[in-house]
Amino acid sequence: MQAEAIDVQAFKVGMGAPDDVSAAARLLDEGALRAQDVVAILGKTEGNGGVNDFTRALATLSFQLLIGRHSGQSVEQIARRVPIIWSGGTEGLMSPHATIFVRSAADPTLPDPGEKRLTVGTAYTRDLLPEEFGRLEHVRVAAEGVRRAIADAGIDDPADIHFVQIKTGALTTERVRDAASRGQTAVTADTYKSMGYARAVAALGIGLATGEIAEDRVSDAAIAQDLGLYSDVASTSSGVELMNCEIIVLGNSRRSRSAYRIAHAVMRDAIDAAAVREALRRAGLRVDCELDPAELPRLVNVFAKCEPDGEGHTRGRRHVMFDDSDINYTRHIRGVVNAVIASVTGDTMCYVSAGAEHQGPPGGGVVAAVVRA
Amino acid sequence: MQAEAIDVQAFKVGMGAPDDVSAAARLLDEGALRAQDVVAILGKTEGNGGVNDFTRALATLSFQLLIGRHSGQSVEQIARRVPIIWSGGTEGLMSPHATIFVRSAADPTLPDPGEKRLTVGTAYTRDLLPEEFGRLEHVRVAAEGVRRAIADAGIDDPADIHFVQIKTGALTTERVRDAASRGQTAVTADTYKSMGYARAVAALGIGLATGEIAEDRVSDAAIAQDLGLYSDVASTSSGVELMNCEIIVLGNSRRSRSAYRIAHAVMRDAIDAAAVREALRRAGLRVDCELDPAELPRLVNVFAKCEPDGEGHTRGRRHVMFDDSDINYTRHIRGVVNAVIASVTGDTMCYVSAGAEHQGPPGGGVVAAVVRA
Amino acid sequence: MQAEAIDVQAFKVGMGAPDDVSAAARLLDEGALRAQDVVAILGKTEGNGGVNDFTRALATLSFQLLIGRHSGQSVEQIARRVPIIWSGGTEGLMSPHATIFVRSAADPTLPDPGEKRLTVGTAYTRDLLPEEFGRLEHVRVAAEGVRRAIADAGIDDPADIHFVQIKTGALTTERVRDAASRGQTAVTADTYKSMGYARAVAALGIGLATGEIAEDRVSDAAIAQDLGLYSDVASTSSGVELMNCEIIVLGNSRRSRSAYRIAHAVMRDAIDAAAVREALRRAGLRVDCELDPAELPRLVNVFAKCEPDGEGHTRGRRHVMFDDSDINYTRHIRGVVNAVIASVTGDTMCYVSAGAEHQGPPGGGVVAAVVRA
Amino acid sequence: MQAEAIDVQAFKVGMGAPDDVSAAARLLDEGALRAQDVVAILGKTEGNGGVNDFTRALATLSFQLLIGRHSGQSVEQIARRVPIIWSGGTEGLMSPHATIFVRSAADPTLPDPGEKRLTVGTAYTRDLLPEEFGRLEHVRVAAEGVRRAIADAGIDDPADIHFVQIKTGALTTERVRDAASRGQTAVTADTYKSMGYARAVAALGIGLATGEIAEDRVSDAAIAQDLGLYSDVASTSSGVELMNCEIIVLGNSRRSRSAYRIAHAVMRDAIDAAAVREALRRAGLRVDCELDPAELPRLVNVFAKCEPDGEGHTRGRRHVMFDDSDINYTRHIRGVVNAVIASVTGDTMCYVSAGAEHQGPPGGGVVAAVVRA
Repeated sequence: MQAEAIDVQAFKVGMGAPDDVSAAARLLDEGALRAQDVVAILGKTEGNGGVNDFTRALATLSFQLLIGRHSGQSVEQIARRVPIIWSGGTEGLMSPHATIFVRSAADPTLPDPGEKRLTVGTAYTRDLLPEEFGRLEHVRVAAEGVRRAIADAGIDDPADIHFVQIKTGALTTERVRDAASRGQTAVTADTYKSMGYARAVAALGIGLATGEIAEDRVSDAAIAQDLGLYSDVASTSSGVELMNCEIIVLGNSRRSRSAYRIAHAVMRDAIDAAAVREALRRAGLRVDCELDPAELPRLVNVFAKCEPDGEGHTRGRRHVMFDDSDINYTRHIRGVVNAVIASVTGDTMCYVSAGAEHQGPPGGGVVAAVVRA
Repeated sequence: MQAEAIDVQAFKVGMGAPDDVSAAARLLDEGALRAQDVVAILGKTEGNGGVNDFTRALATLSFQLLIGRHSGQSVEQIARRVPIIWSGGTEGLMSPHATIFVRSAADPTLPDPGEKRLTVGTAYTRDLLPEEFGRLEHVRVAAEGVRRAIADAGIDDPADIHFVQIKTGALTTERVRDAASRGQTAVTADTYKSMGYARAVAALGIGLATGEIAEDRVSDAAIAQDLGLYSDVASTSSGVELMNCEIIVLGNSRRSRSAYRIAHAVMRDAIDAAAVREALRRAGLRVDCELDPAELPRLVNVFAKCEPDGEGHTRGRRHVMFDDSDINYTRHIRGVVNAVIASVTGDTMCYVSAGAEHQGPPGGGVVAAVVRA
Repeated sequence: MQAEAIDVQAFKVGMGAPDDVSAAARLLDEGALRAQDVVAILGKTEGNGGVNDFTRALATLSFQLLIGRHSGQSVEQIARRVPIIWSGGTEGLMSPHATIFVRSAADPTLPDPGEKRLTVGTAYTRDLLPEEFGRLEHVRVAAEGVRRAIADAGIDDPADIHFVQIKTGALTTERVRDAASRGQTAVTADTYKSMGYARAVAALGIGLATGEIAEDRVSDAAIAQDLGLYSDVASTSSGVELMNCEIIVLGNSRRSRSAYRIAHAVMRDAIDAAAVREALRRAGLRVDCELDPAELPRLVNVFAKCEPDGEGHTRGRRHVMFDDSDINYTRHIRGVVNAVIASVTGDTMCYVSAGAEHQGPPGGGVVAAVVRA
Repeated sequence: MQAEAIDVQAFKVGMGAPDDVSAAARLLDEGALRAQDVVAILGKTEGNGGVNDFTRALATLSFQLLIGRHSGQSVEQIARRVPIIWSGGTEGLMSPHATIFVRSAADPTLPDPGEKRLTVGTAYTRDLLPEEFGRLEHVRVAAEGVRRAIADAGIDDPADIHFVQIKTGALTTERVRDAASRGQTAVTADTYKSMGYARAVAALGIGLATGEIAEDRVSDAAIAQDLGLYSDVASTSSGVELMNCEIIVLGNSRRSRSAYRIAHAVMRDAIDAAAVREALRRAGLRVDCELDPAELPRLVNVFAKCEPDGEGHTRGRRHVMFDDSDINYTRHIRGVVNAVIASVTGDTMCYVSAGAEHQGPPGGGVVAAVVRA
């Protein structure tokens, strides 16, 4: 028996502040989308992206209240149904925004597009304990969740997975103490550093679920260390506001009659503009050195992960990010990759998240494009 | 009578810290250049680029001591002869470095290249009083200095001027109080803001000297306000360590038998990669979407000025730089433009300085390339 | 006819994050206070206290949702009834918290305390236009609001006013552009600086309403300039999340049968520990060099305003706050004054807000103590 | 045979910038001290106190050049003879300055003061390898150096040691890579964190040398972990500009005929003003709640070490320093302790250095006062 055909849409809305949901509200008011069909939101907020970045919590609450007003659901119900994931930090020219993913049963009158089209699947995992956090159990919990999200998306071929986002938690001083009070140790007492462990275990979980990483190579010792292990489609982030994993899988599926398509490439380093062009072309856009301006309306968004080269050099030239005690390296590198992408697309409103441990080759990361087909 | 033929060279040296002159020392030890021929140094240091950025003073002192050791001149003599200008702030991937300009009488055996080649001229002005600072008198003093530096460079056609760097001072709390103690007022009591006035008046001085700006349009009211007034070849920066103007003019001259050439284009905004490609091509390099890697050894350095779009939007998309109370906008935008340039050249070690008041069109600025001919 | 007797209480609750209302929720659950009696909340959140500090908005929304859940009122109703004012920035040891003020008709069985006791009054003003913001009209609007809040508090003698808090707005790049689009100019285009104008006009409005400042001395030219004009009981802050004035007046009143009392002193500079001791003693606590530890349970909270000495020196010694391009001076000085207060009281959870333009003598500010009588 | 009597003086000079040696130059010009008698300099510079704080290097070079000009010695000679130690970071009201220690054979006409008086001793150790750095060998090297400095000071009773300062290095990305290139591992790859290890090993070395810490309790596992191990007189700091230990021991000695005296107390936490009062009294000053203003001219300087309480709470109240991704906790806490000291002495120009691993009880640290006897 054939699984039901679905329709998927993606809307990018700018935000004037973390609690500015006015652009999304207009779409709901105009009937461009229905609140009950929203299945995931992925965006960038203008915080520091660090431990004390509360712009994410504010944006989440603001969107939950908006969806609640339009759907009649409570904030608690929405929190269990719709992953709303923010990467904090809009350095350089990066423009704060959200991409809203909508999914519904396909209107029977929609023609079969004759090719795989955009799909989205989601999942939630259980909360991790502080002592499990950033360790092998965290990898396993993440992997199991990703498998559920892939199934939810209706994807059966791993080659059709183009971007997997996990938001997971971070340790705080309180959580480290909580573990200690029960005779347990946390993987680190450095709260900023715990965000790196969080991203690492989530990425390894993605790699296990997509088959990119072999189960027997993943161990506690490998986490955040053996960077030869990675997933090319992983994008993970960390924030104190949760302790579980919230998962969004994006890909193409035969079941989807969406008007959208997704593709990806892998940046080998932070200035790899060629990979940006490649991702856009794979998604079906015309690109010379830059995206043909006539094609810009077809581009919904670009999603990228990035990190500085770990050796302190990029193409042989020293960078100072790791020695900067004023600005964390994640803040530096996000502005760089946003600039490289925008110099190709002409649009600074794209999603760039930093901290790419096990997400693409060291110093590089995924770049995916969602476009109107 | 014919002016004497000159030879000019440009060397880019990486720096591991503001006081790391080891790469320059090696060049001196190897005889690649002579200390007494050094006429100007222009570089990037890894400070915050703000009022309290003392990396510039440390780098200056370190290079003065180096040149002194090799030339037998005292630090004081060198300080009156060799402008050493640093732009602080190596955000993103920008790699700390210095470009050392060397000038000497041309060896008679050097063939006439049959075209205008790289030249460099310098000048110093008198110290400004705190109450003159950032006002019309400061513009006039700068303009007079630039005219001397152009003459020193042996340039007679303004079209041959491709990059004019001025470093001038900044107000400090002490200097504002000094003016007040004499019954005078400073243009602003905000020390960070005074750096913007400093850049503005220096740029207007350049525009007067090159003829790009008409004398009758420059007034106190126009400073940092009428941004329709600008010079396309101006690059000015500000630092507390001085109160005069130090000036370096780069261009091409018939008098020069240099093996180097300079050209420039104008970026219309911070993600204008096309202008970067154009500057490289005008300088004689092969560029497709990116610089042909085989040409990279011919590229000495790229010099650019930048600033965020003043309206808070770039190509219609909001940026958050002006509302960020943690990181000054100059820090954000430098990382952006360095990334755009490096994504074309493949080299993150280039000179990008922020704060482009009256330096190129609003939101844009000069991008110049010095190459081996 | 006698005005009705009132009861007023003040509860200080710690916060683990800007959206952590758990301590307040416990008080509500235990019946220690009733949601419908909450008339004002004044607290410190762990943001940067600058333009892009969204912790304030998050904390406000979180407390509004809490009060709504317990009172049945909507967020919108609460927003028009209960001023919730946050000062962002808990530098140094300052501990994030809220002080909740509760007011109700006095239980007839409450004995007359025989002295004036704690009272609280509130008011809201209209929204200011961007072009009115930070100018004389803003002063007038604030003064009119403070007069209403004083009347609401049942205070008839200005000597009984001990602390007046106003939260007003800030300019953003958007608002400056809005004014410009209508042919109007904002008082400044520098968003961080607009927060200083906001604090200044609100403080002048307080001084007019209390009679400390004569009406004929207040002009546009005096705003943020003539710092000899000040109110000793003013505490004003600024945040992008609003454009009106929200006002809380604290004092003692004959009408109040509260178990609490308030008093204040004025710090002459940021290290004036003697003024802290004086405020505590006036409020009725035993203080030697430090607060008698046995008295600590009687201390509800200390509320202080602060700013660095404007000349760049404190008691003849240079400070670097105004030349620091990494950390705004408001962040430096809050940590200082919190430390001085805590070194006397033993409690780092107190309210210290920076930017004391026209609030106490230059370099100093009010320090008020609310205690159990 | 009697060891030769010595004279020791201490001069505190304010600095307008890291390279401002004008106040020291005046003292030399006036003959208040002789350049060849300078044996140690200990001061605060206005950098961030982190990995990329180059104000320390600039100040060192500036003082070396000054002493060189007045003594005829080269910078290299001075670098091997005079430890010049800076703690970066003058947060809050802390005023940048240097304390210059001068030592010479006592003038035979100087009367025997009849009590132990101020003495100073110094030592340098060998450079540590990156792989030794922050580990047990580093402790041993530090301890051996401190023993030499104690002997140099002419101190035979450990009770006469009141303040021991060590400046040691920090790992950089380059140094970590250097170790890796030789098949070795560094104790951490996190450069900011390496500064904590540096302070820890140096403090343990001091404790071994003074006898406060038993040799058999010190191990690699104890470093930066077993904080029950500490020295009450240790003050250590870290900076990239060196890889050895530079050591200054301050105490009182029978050999000294100095007009100065030193004493210390231990702050149990960052707001322990009582300990500040105690240190001043032990040094012989009149202190009620605050230092008697008439005594202020007798106070040369106060030297303190500090750190936040490691549990995230101070006297039961949460602080946010460890969760702050914008400002490092060392910056927060320095401003706090400077404020507490200044609120007692009335002088914000004192030396407060952060990062007190193994230096006094957890959350506390030494506070020492040098006064005119």
